[in-house]
Amino acid sequence: MKATVIGLGLIGGSIALDLKKAGLVTHIAGIDLNREHTEEALKLGLVDEIVNPAAVKDMDLVVMAIPVSALVKMLPGILDAVPNHAVVIDAGSTKSQICKAVANHPNRAQFVASHPIAGTENSGPTAAFSGLFRNKTNIICERELTSPAALEVALKVFDALGMNTIFMEPEEHDRHVAYVSHLSHVSSFLLGQTVLDIERDEKNIFDLAGSGFASTVRLAKSSPDMWAPIFEQNAEYLSQALLEYIMHLQRFQYHLMKRDTKELHKIMTEANRIREILNGIELKQPKPSIVNK
Amino acid sequence: MKATVIGLGLIGGSIALDLKKAGLVTHIAGIDLNREHTEEALKLGLVDEIVNPAAVKDMDLVVMAIPVSALVKMLPGILDAVPNHAVVIDAGSTKSQICKAVANHPNRAQFVASHPIAGTENSGPTAAFSGLFRNKTNIICERELTSPAALEVALKVFDALGMNTIFMEPEEHDRHVAYVSHLSHVSSFLLGQTVLDIERDEKNIFDLAGSGFASTVRLAKSSPDMWAPIFEQNAEYLSQALLEYIMHLQRFQYHLMKRDTKELHKIMTEANRIREILNGIELKQPKPSIVNK
Repeated sequence: MKATVIGLGLIGGSIALDLKKAGLVTHIAGIDLNREHTEEALKLGLVDEIVNPAAVKDMDLVVMAIPVSALVKMLPGILDAVPNHAVVIDAGSTKSQICKAVANHPNRAQFVASHPIAGTENSGPTAAFSGLFRNKTNIICERELTSPAALEVALKVFDALGMNTIFMEPEEHDRHVAYVSHLSHVSSFLLGQTVLDIERDEKNIFDLAGSGFASTVRLAKSSPDMWAPIFEQNAEYLSQALLEYIMHLQRFQYHLMKRDTKELHKIMTEANRIREILNGIELKQPKPSIVNK
Repeated sequence: MKATVIGLGLIGGSIALDLKKAGLVTHIAGIDLNREHTEEALKLGLVDEIVNPAAVKDMDLVVMAIPVSALVKMLPGILDAVPNHAVVIDAGSTKSQICKAVANHPNRAQFVASHPIAGTENSGPTAAFSGLFRNKTNIICERELTSPAALEVALKVFDALGMNTIFMEPEEHDRHVAYVSHLSHVSSFLLGQTVLDIERDEKNIFDLAGSGFASTVRLAKSSPDMWAPIFEQNAEYLSQALLEYIMHLQRFQYHLMKRDTKELHKIMTEANRIREILNGIELKQPKPSIVNK
């Protein structure tokens, strides 16, 4: 199988590495607007050659790992250009607008709307590594609009990445990720900003920051180019999640000002239930030592 | 030197291990209200024997690693009971109220108000490990109220833990940790609560949670018994930090609802500056592989 990966960053680069490693594709061509990224991707061996978008006419598989705003714009043209047997898979973190963009496309059945859920706070080709997706969850939306043959190819791709695929509708997907992914990123970005803000007046404040702080603001290092379009596309659900989060924070602050430690204790005890859930998530993560960089 | 550690949890237990390892103390006695904890601490070899508080009359060094509400109550009595040459060190995460509690104590000069900044989201004797404090920052407050001799002993203790000690006034300490520690914990507790809340209506939402979510809510696993008194004692500064955080979140939500991606991008790019700061913090952390559990 001949494949093209569009977008040679953390996600696209890591997918390319694992497709090659699994032997599912014999040749991988890469496409990226960023000249520096294409050079790095070649040097790192993420792809075999760099091509331009017209080359998708000769491909069996096209994986699109670009910002979701670019996906909405570029996807219809790619579906126009690929041969009849080709399969097009995206890796966007939102699904409703992407699915809408090709809802009436004559080649809709060749498209598999996917969200392989994995990532780090790093970006670009140098951030890519084999094993990023191992044991993690992939979501496929609107499976009934994809042809059985294309779905089969997509499942082989996600198998090669070591992922567990589940099916969901786009709206349900977007509502869920607003809470368990997008909200975490916003909370982290703004925690970082709040503390950077106060640092202007208070020197050496970071001498007092420990590993807890580092863990909580880790996501504030994430790429704004990737996240701004995600937040825009998921603005409704994310806004709802944010309002709920703000409401919880305000309620906490109210009890804090009343020195109602009994209530604060109760809230924290409820939040402790996250322990069981995190144990489940951590079990799914590959240990750093078994990740082949 | 004969030492007693009061409070045999993560902090007290880890201090005991490193004091013994460094050869600074020959005998460590332990005190804890929790019977199960004293048994575990003995079994794990954190302390040599369990004593009752009256035993501090024969000690050269007393380290108090108990919740800050208990510290305020218990510290004056311990300073009454210790011999004239003994040094009493606390490890509380707030400093103003603890310093006030002994401001007029006749033995104030024997007390070293400290905050060795380290921890994990786990608690109790089984969470203790040697190396927890290595290469981290310790704060000593009101150094001028401690006798030079007592300060010298305290610095030997923090040297044995591998810590870098800096000096600060209690109010400055409390204001700083409100931002770089306490706020992170609140943000994490309430992020956990927000998502657990939504989970009641949406099944399987955690299938979509990845390592980013896990990192951001890790601190929501922390002990309410430890944190409720810290939040109460630092309510003024923490409330101020929380209000600023809420203000940033609301501003973000406003731009989100206006689909002002340019402004969202700008906010995230500013927050990205946290990367340099985190690199500094991560350099200070011991690698898990060199931590002797």
